[in-house]
Amino acid sequence: MTPERRRGEALVRAIHEAVLAEVADTGLGGLSMEGIARRAATAKTVLYRRWATPFELLIDALGEAHPVEVPTPAADDLRADLIAALTLLTDWMATPAAGAVLVITSERARYPELAEALYSKVFDPRGGTFTTTVLRHYAASGRVDPRRLTPITTQIGEALVFKLSIDNGRIPDVDELAAIVDEALLPALGL
Amino acid sequence: MTPERRRGEALVRAIHEAVLAEVADTGLGGLSMEGIARRAATAKTVLYRRWATPFELLIDALGEAHPVEVPTPAADDLRADLIAALTLLTDWMATPAAGAVLVITSERARYPELAEALYSKVFDPRGGTFTTTVLRHYAASGRVDPRRLTPITTQIGEALVFKLSIDNGRIPDVDELAAIVDEALLPALGL
Repeated sequence: MTPERRRGEALVRAIHEAVLAEVADTGLGGLSMEGIARRAATAKTVLYRRWATPFELLIDALGEAHPVEVPTPAADDLRADLIAALTLLTDWMATPAAGAVLVITSERARYPELAEALYSKVFDPRGGTFTTTVLRHYAASGRVDPRRLTPITTQIGEALVFKLSIDNGRIPDVDELAAIVDEALLPALGL
Repeated sequence: MTPERRRGEALVRAIHEAVLAEVADTGLGGLSMEGIARRAATAKTVLYRRWATPFELLIDALGEAHPVEVPTPAADDLRADLIAALTLLTDWMATPAAGAVLVITSERARYPELAEALYSKVFDPRGGTFTTTVLRHYAASGRVDPRRLTPITTQIGEALVFKLSIDNGRIPDVDELAAIVDEALLPALGL
């Protein structure tokens, strides 16, 4: 890796951090290439070389920040892999990226195309929801009945994590994640 | 019922509607007895006779607007009663009361006591979550194992309704509510 290349990656990282910080400060309505460039201590022209609009840059930053779950095939431990997938989710929820996602979904009526891009370019390429990649892996290996993987069951983990967060005003801990897996997710898989 | 009494109830209803409309317009930070009184076409003194603060009035309005689920014991149809409970939820989600609840939960960090009052004075006296009253009824009659009623399983219905609403940008329809009951809730009850 050449020094120039490393500078390039560091710059992109700084720009990604800048756009997420800008969303937190100004909301979507106030997002501008000028504000992002200022915060990243770079020039607007540098941004335009790679991204056409602030929203395109925002979606790129969210894609980069989004965790990818990896089942541990050797272990063959569905329960542990599901808890790990939900832990990835709760770790991510504490990051600026999650704050920006919340802003985009709550402003969906005003910026429908941005919300659409969030799903099609960030969530869907990474499995759609947390736990889905793990569930597909165990369905492929025959441990889970593939007919149990539905648009409802693949949402159970995320839905309960978000609901408990709203009700309790804090991100669920690992005991609560285990309870979600044991009391809701595994039964819905017929296990 | 005397005409005076009826005027009193109509006035309270107008004040309740006014506070919910004010929250939608001004947010919690802009809520004032003056603004509510103006919108309800009454005097501030009339409000202070019954409520000490705008937040107390808001919680009162939300309690009044909150649906109460009633199982249909004669029918003994758990599935239909669960779908009916979730339909109460989705009907309520289209009302100004639900909009105010969303504002309160999203502003929880700034107004923690208001969020606390929402749970302790509005939700908890009505069963805590939609489906809980129905589940308790069937647990009492022996149709559902009471050990399956946990802080997780009583949240499954609401959690999935909210999650689908966020993801799809619309309130779930009755087929989706039935899928939530069939694919997530009944399995979590061991049924």
